Amino acid sequence: MSNVICFGELMLRLSPEGYNRFVQADKFDINYGGSEANVALSLVNYNMNSTFITKLPSNEIGQSALNKLRQYGVNTSKIKMDGERIGIYYMEKGASQRPSKVIYDRSNSAISNANLDDFNWDEIFNNAKWFHFSGITPALSDNLAEICLEACKKAKKNNITVSCDLNYRSKLWSEKKANKVMTQIMNYVDVCVANEEDIEKVFGIKAEDTDVSHGKINYDSYKSVAEEVLSKFNLSMVACNLRTSISASDNKLLAVLYDGNKFYQSKEYDVHIVDRVGGGDSFLAGLIYGLLNNKSNQEALEFATAAGVLKHSIEGDFNMVTVSEVENLASGDSSGRVQR
Amino acid sequence: MSNVICFGELMLRLSPEGYNRFVQADKFDINYGGSEANVALSLVNYNMNSTFITKLPSNEIGQSALNKLRQYGVNTSKIKMDGERIGIYYMEKGASQRPSKVIYDRSNSAISNANLDDFNWDEIFNNAKWFHFSGITPALSDNLAEICLEACKKAKKNNITVSCDLNYRSKLWSEKKANKVMTQIMNYVDVCVANEEDIEKVFGIKAEDTDVSHGKINYDSYKSVAEEVLSKFNLSMVACNLRTSISASDNKLLAVLYDGNKFYQSKEYDVHIVDRVGGGDSFLAGLIYGLLNNKSNQEALEFATAAGVLKHSIEGDFNMVTVSEVENLASGDSSGRVQR
Amino acid sequence: MSNVICFGELMLRLSPEGYNRFVQADKFDINYGGSEANVALSLVNYNMNSTFITKLPSNEIGQSALNKLRQYGVNTSKIKMDGERIGIYYMEKGASQRPSKVIYDRSNSAISNANLDDFNWDEIFNNAKWFHFSGITPALSDNLAEICLEACKKAKKNNITVSCDLNYRSKLWSEKKANKVMTQIMNYVDVCVANEEDIEKVFGIKAEDTDVSHGKINYDSYKSVAEEVLSKFNLSMVACNLRTSISASDNKLLAVLYDGNKFYQSKEYDVHIVDRVGGGDSFLAGLIYGLLNNKSNQEALEFATAAGVLKHSIEGDFNMVTVSEVENLASGDSSGRVQR
Amino acid sequence: MSNVICFGELMLRLSPEGYNRFVQADKFDINYGGSEANVALSLVNYNMNSTFITKLPSNEIGQSALNKLRQYGVNTSKIKMDGERIGIYYMEKGASQRPSKVIYDRSNSAISNANLDDFNWDEIFNNAKWFHFSGITPALSDNLAEICLEACKKAKKNNITVSCDLNYRSKLWSEKKANKVMTQIMNYVDVCVANEEDIEKVFGIKAEDTDVSHGKINYDSYKSVAEEVLSKFNLSMVACNLRTSISASDNKLLAVLYDGNKFYQSKEYDVHIVDRVGGGDSFLAGLIYGLLNNKSNQEALEFATAAGVLKHSIEGDFNMVTVSEVENLASGDSSGRVQR
Amino acid sequence: MSNVICFGELMLRLSPEGYNRFVQADKFDINYGGSEANVALSLVNYNMNSTFITKLPSNEIGQSALNKLRQYGVNTSKIKMDGERIGIYYMEKGASQRPSKVIYDRSNSAISNANLDDFNWDEIFNNAKWFHFSGITPALSDNLAEICLEACKKAKKNNITVSCDLNYRSKLWSEKKANKVMTQIMNYVDVCVANEEDIEKVFGIKAEDTDVSHGKINYDSYKSVAEEVLSKFNLSMVACNLRTSISASDNKLLAVLYDGNKFYQSKEYDVHIVDRVGGGDSFLAGLIYGLLNNKSNQEALEFATAAGVLKHSIEGDFNMVTVSEVENLASGDSSGRVQR
Amino acid sequence: MSNVICFGELMLRLSPEGYNRFVQADKFDINYGGSEANVALSLVNYNMNSTFITKLPSNEIGQSALNKLRQYGVNTSKIKMDGERIGIYYMEKGASQRPSKVIYDRSNSAISNANLDDFNWDEIFNNAKWFHFSGITPALSDNLAEICLEACKKAKKNNITVSCDLNYRSKLWSEKKANKVMTQIMNYVDVCVANEEDIEKVFGIKAEDTDVSHGKINYDSYKSVAEEVLSKFNLSMVACNLRTSISASDNKLLAVLYDGNKFYQSKEYDVHIVDRVGGGDSFLAGLIYGLLNNKSNQEALEFATAAGVLKHSIEGDFNMVTVSEVENLASGDSSGRVQR
Repeated sequence: MSNVICFGELMLRLSPEGYNRFVQADKFDINYGGSEANVALSLVNYNMNSTFITKLPSNEIGQSALNKLRQYGVNTSKIKMDGERIGIYYMEKGASQRPSKVIYDRSNSAISNANLDDFNWDEIFNNAKWFHFSGITPALSDNLAEICLEACKKAKKNNITVSCDLNYRSKLWSEKKANKVMTQIMNYVDVCVANEEDIEKVFGIKAEDTDVSHGKINYDSYKSVAEEVLSKFNLSMVACNLRTSISASDNKLLAVLYDGNKFYQSKEYDVHIVDRVGGGDSFLAGLIYGLLNNKSNQEALEFATAAGVLKHSIEGDFNMVTVSEVENLASGDSSGRVQR
Repeated sequence: MSNVICFGELMLRLSPEGYNRFVQADKFDINYGGSEANVALSLVNYNMNSTFITKLPSNEIGQSALNKLRQYGVNTSKIKMDGERIGIYYMEKGASQRPSKVIYDRSNSAISNANLDDFNWDEIFNNAKWFHFSGITPALSDNLAEICLEACKKAKKNNITVSCDLNYRSKLWSEKKANKVMTQIMNYVDVCVANEEDIEKVFGIKAEDTDVSHGKINYDSYKSVAEEVLSKFNLSMVACNLRTSISASDNKLLAVLYDGNKFYQSKEYDVHIVDRVGGGDSFLAGLIYGLLNNKSNQEALEFATAAGVLKHSIEGDFNMVTVSEVENLASGDSSGRVQR
Repeated sequence: MSNVICFGELMLRLSPEGYNRFVQADKFDINYGGSEANVALSLVNYNMNSTFITKLPSNEIGQSALNKLRQYGVNTSKIKMDGERIGIYYMEKGASQRPSKVIYDRSNSAISNANLDDFNWDEIFNNAKWFHFSGITPALSDNLAEICLEACKKAKKNNITVSCDLNYRSKLWSEKKANKVMTQIMNYVDVCVANEEDIEKVFGIKAEDTDVSHGKINYDSYKSVAEEVLSKFNLSMVACNLRTSISASDNKLLAVLYDGNKFYQSKEYDVHIVDRVGGGDSFLAGLIYGLLNNKSNQEALEFATAAGVLKHSIEGDFNMVTVSEVENLASGDSSGRVQR
Repeated sequence: MSNVICFGELMLRLSPEGYNRFVQADKFDINYGGSEANVALSLVNYNMNSTFITKLPSNEIGQSALNKLRQYGVNTSKIKMDGERIGIYYMEKGASQRPSKVIYDRSNSAISNANLDDFNWDEIFNNAKWFHFSGITPALSDNLAEICLEACKKAKKNNITVSCDLNYRSKLWSEKKANKVMTQIMNYVDVCVANEEDIEKVFGIKAEDTDVSHGKINYDSYKSVAEEVLSKFNLSMVACNLRTSISASDNKLLAVLYDGNKFYQSKEYDVHIVDRVGGGDSFLAGLIYGLLNNKSNQEALEFATAAGVLKHSIEGDFNMVTVSEVENLASGDSSGRVQR
Repeated sequence: MSNVICFGELMLRLSPEGYNRFVQADKFDINYGGSEANVALSLVNYNMNSTFITKLPSNEIGQSALNKLRQYGVNTSKIKMDGERIGIYYMEKGASQRPSKVIYDRSNSAISNANLDDFNWDEIFNNAKWFHFSGITPALSDNLAEICLEACKKAKKNNITVSCDLNYRSKLWSEKKANKVMTQIMNYVDVCVANEEDIEKVFGIKAEDTDVSHGKINYDSYKSVAEEVLSKFNLSMVACNLRTSISASDNKLLAVLYDGNKFYQSKEYDVHIVDRVGGGDSFLAGLIYGLLNNKSNQEALEFATAAGVLKHSIEGDFNMVTVSEVENLASGDSSGRVQR
Repeated sequence: MSNVICFGELMLRLSPEGYNRFVQADKFDINYGGSEANVALSLVNYNMNSTFITKLPSNEIGQSALNKLRQYGVNTSKIKMDGERIGIYYMEKGASQRPSKVIYDRSNSAISNANLDDFNWDEIFNNAKWFHFSGITPALSDNLAEICLEACKKAKKNNITVSCDLNYRSKLWSEKKANKVMTQIMNYVDVCVANEEDIEKVFGIKAEDTDVSHGKINYDSYKSVAEEVLSKFNLSMVACNLRTSISASDNKLLAVLYDGNKFYQSKEYDVHIVDRVGGGDSFLAGLIYGLLNNKSNQEALEFATAAGVLKHSIEGDFNMVTVSEVENLASGDSSGRVQR
């Protein structure tokens, strides 16, 4: 089976129970997540092999994070156990007009302090078919930007497909710095994925007639955005998952894909949200699955979109769905009738 | 007060907390339920007498199941305590486009292994006015099919009204076997209730212009379905509760009733779902209540539909609502304003 | 900083977990609330000074109630600790067509048995700018009606603005008695707030074309209602927050305000409800905040309405939101996008 | 089967989770209990018939209390549903040197306000063999003292054995008043049960060389105490369950019994405490069971003591143990080895 | 690293929260366990390789069981996913004089219905050093007795050490049948482990002066028991972990070992019990660890005993302790001082 | 009322529920604690004024920490809200022979990065009577060592009594560094408190015949230890609370005090442990209370010891007990009898 390598940070996620706000909490639900780990997890749920690369402290909290990936079948044998602490993010669930809120406490995490020689990429890429990371990884530290670049180069040398989710995070770096680093890295990327505003933030390419904070998205405008990015970096594919936020409880989801020849658009879904985090990661894992399993671009896009939709009905960062569940939705059964 | 006898299986229901999927669960909420027990429970909430007949193992788990019915006032004095185990069903709550999911572990339950002489129907039917069971009961085992038939005959001999909810379960028997067994039993039934697809599965009579997996239901087409079933078995009444599944979170509910003379249709409701299970059972209990309390057919149908609607706002299998709560909704107040 | 004095009952609120009905509960979530305490709490969340006046029993339950206010920063130093018991209200969360339900057990609470000399209003009003209470306070007992009147007089003597939320509670007094007591008190009130039916209940002034139990509200009709009340009592302002109840899960909210010169109307919001209680109190606190912070009447009304909207997304009686969160919504961003 | 009638108050018990103190609580575990209800519950666990007589408010909280008794099989058909409120007691679990703590909020409960004509004792005592109440019942109000006396007289007229647990509660009445009321009632009592200090508090008869607050109990001294009480009131039996409190976590338990002829003493047990409440009630139910089932006085005392011991290992007020579990311990197996 | 193969049943364990009895439960804590799986789990906690062999149904419940082993690092790649259901055991935690209680619902589990060709032992034993199973495995069904025997023969052919924990279960087979089957199997076993009564139940060899139900164990008498068993079956080692049950909360633990030459005895420990299940399995895993890591017999015995002791402080079936934690206790530090 | 100033770090404490180990946790109980905050909290529970000085990040997590102190009445108005993050400690509860375990993640906490000008000591000490800190505070960073020294000097200048709990933490600094820093600071300290090994670690003065890891403590030997420390630094008082650790569940506690003239020893207590953390802080707060309230040295010591004992029965870091509860125990009633 083809193996997908995902590289990034795995954080401890601490959330108040139910819809409690941070200042009302007396317990935290424990989850673990991170953009690339979420992708790796989705893939094993689709019966694929995936390996997650990170660095975690060798205490019980770091071990618990590793264990959680292992529980669901991700290959964790290459995770480096060393360093000071695990990154944390506090996550408060929104509802109606009240947004979900995230507080990061990820500075000085083991992975952000990692060094070039913590990872042996030649060994890691042995037998691998795909390498995935997001823009968060190089944003964590200068070291990681360098490691990312190194990994991309090694991947290309090994004829491995490279995908990158732009995932711009303003808390981690400025648009200017992101632009500089990502411009360099993108030369080694084959498949670039972005949400409704990443490309504008990182590369300054804006979709017209779109105002995400007022729930207005012009899908057609993403065609030229995708074309511009694709040609700028010699990518083979650009995909955007586009979220219209009606409220914290209700979103509309649709995705587009451009492969240099044709512009594809998925069905649009009305989504009632159980957990807002990880939708983009699930979209990305769905896309990788589709492309590695010989689906057509339209099919892969529909699969990815349906996967992203289903994620919003699931607690935690991870998308706990099977291929048949995604395909059932992608093929048009969105009735949610009881499965007995 | 008139007494209603309900006969069937009572299962231990194990559900992950909240919207967790099975593979995410670390606790199970404990509930008990089963189609006929749910009917019995609804009826005592309407201040009627109901008696539940089943067989449960005489260990603490079986006792806990019995206790739960007793807590809410169902007469459990005729339950046979013996046999190996209680049937279990694992229940995962769906949301948005992700369906609820049920895993059954009910083989070799005490009730499915019951024998003819476990139940003394003449004694059970003493002072009874109504006998109810669903198609699940005869589907559990050949023994139970035989016991069901025996009970129906005894009921008719005692001038007791017999109702049957078709409740086709493909995990328990084939459409062919269901057809054979139910055809025999239906000769003793007065009131037949079905959902949007039971009649097609059991008797091969299909509603036209209806495609339930794509959320399309043609209410009018159920008139001829009802007429055909009613005349085939010399029933006094056929009622169908029809669910249009928008998603796992949102359904539309409406019911129709045919009494040999006239075709009745209830109001339609938009329902936000807290717990998907037991809506049909609540409809049925509402119908029995209405008919035994001298409501007109239209009133009984509206009461039954409103009862089924309210069930979806309540956790567990049981419909914990009062007559006045149902009547308040049936009479048009669906505003859900706080009751202080 | 200007200080707001709020006077009323603080109750222990006991709610079954999640959507369980009372008869299904095995645990109660503990919250504390009461109309005027809720206002005081909102105000400290807006970084204002507020002081809550009440009487609580000097046992651990009374102390826990005081502690909860103190946790969030309300000044509790003037609370009288004495008397028999704390009032309790049991609160069951509704969903879809099933209403939320409240059972009161507040008789003989410490505050309802309070005497005139339990409170030294001159000392309490030292440095205060605003005095707030609701119609619940005088309804608790004849003693309290007298204390309320006394407090109002002292407030006016100290040039303190007085606001009153009519908050009619039929369990506490008749419309006739409410009319008599409130008519006397209103002479000392500057700002009167009411919901869609309070004014009719207390003063017999009905909004035309409005039928709240069937979800029909004619906003325009509240203009004449407000005019009539304002002129009747020489108020400086009348505001009504108007709720259209689609179901227990979905409400529409809009508010109107009349200042003797002009009739203002806020934006309307579609609200998905997490917790139904305390919306009016949040509206009121928002209004006080706006007026004390030199917002225009329109701005104050929008701030108050947005505050009331956000409350419905928050568990418990208290509105745990900040000024910037309210202003963000009031200024048009209702997209609920994740805050990272 | 012989029927035991128990008469008293059933309260809602609210306890912080685990070992949390009241001021740390954010949830309350819901239990229901009361001295005589606890006796009734124990008896049905021993497969006896018991009927509980009380008055409860006809709201969902009162109904939930009734339901809890019904769940375990107590006959609740004679409970009067009316009145204002259910009595509450807040219960904080102690540990090590920190005592358990109880706060009562039982004034104005439905039962404390009951009237003579709320209960038809002739009907209640039909087919009954035993009538039980504790000193708490007449302490609740003058009305109840009168009702208790009336019930005792009716019981004697019906040749029903009457038992009374002295259960002195200083929060409910003074020693002087208790003495006056109980002296009158004891003339109709056959079996009197007390703990290590009740007899001193109510009848002023002190056990020598005993200082319960310093964990010192002289078992022999209870012989003369029992003799004096028995002869004073012409009782047929006096039993004392004697607790040596090492700490809130560890107690020693032993009981004595005097039948006018002989003084019996049970084995002594070292008990590790899970829940401290209800030990005396369990002792009493064990004694009633033993006496009604033709055990010798020594056997009945051993059964009762073992029952009281086991209660301390069980959460809540109710003693959820079977006859065989009690007999196993009474007969000497205290090893606590796993039952597979 | 040397690999240990463990073969047996993995069950879903459902336990009421805290010290609740079954009939009081409203939630079940979910754990998974089984004698041999517990051994496998302990070993990976000691950084050894272990592989668990069983058969589980290919639904989400079976998958969750597998996932739990995988989470902690057990090799689950050889588990057969097929069959009807997972075996269940309900587990109620005892305290003080009240024993823990287990109810089994394991009939027709996937593993009990397994066939010879479900497992390819030659492949399984590739690179293995040790094979372990308990007497529970052959007791599950005749098929499993045959498979066990087959596995033992294959193990011996591959020069793999075989250990067997007698683990007699009277619910699964009679002493007579156990004797017959185990006598045959023991010819292939090297290390036999038993508790204080297994050898008597299975082989009729009784320790003198020992009465386990009254907490009396004569350690010396186990010397002759061990000698007799060892010589009867040509074993290389017999070890007995001996539990003196003071109560369900307090046990004493000590173990003995006989290697054909010398009789070893461990330190004795006073244990306060958090969870009673899995102590013997932890002892066994400790013994395997010690023997495979070149400890002396006395050291291995002390390690195994300390491991068993620590298990009792840990929730669930699995012994979540590290080598250094066990060695710290085995070497004499039982002070339980905080590790910062 | 006299005011006590406490200065140190307040951490977020995350603990698995019940006795779960870290790797078994799916929820964390949220508590807040830190040596000096614990002292401040105890003091307000004794109705004294205490003010806590620290620096916390101005996000919701920092605010929640502040709120928790405020809830119980600590003066938090001088807390500096700024900086990166709150320090965290993960806390796993031990039992029997398994120790409690603490993992720190406190680097780069807001307080550890504080600067001299974050605190205005002259203003802070206005009206103060006592200044308290522990050896943890200067160990956090060089900055904090300097701030501590500065604060001590200012305290002395203001005639404020200074107490210091040595509280050596090997994870924060070496014995050598501790010795150097603390030697300087101790010149400004009046009352020095230590546990059974702090003085040896920090000042190299060892108690003879004492081996804490094997539960052996020679109380007499602490006399010369105390004398040596007292004279070395010109202290007015040295107190040691001495813990004999039988197991993680059972400890013995006793304390000694030397005032330059006389050596005092408290009663010894057998303690069953609910939560192991904060015993020393509770002892210290008890001592401050006693000394500020004119108790004799022996009385103050007994009060402090009893306070420390009671802490072990309470969940979390904070000692939630009243003066009367402590005095009741100190005066000899350790029976733990129910308080009704």
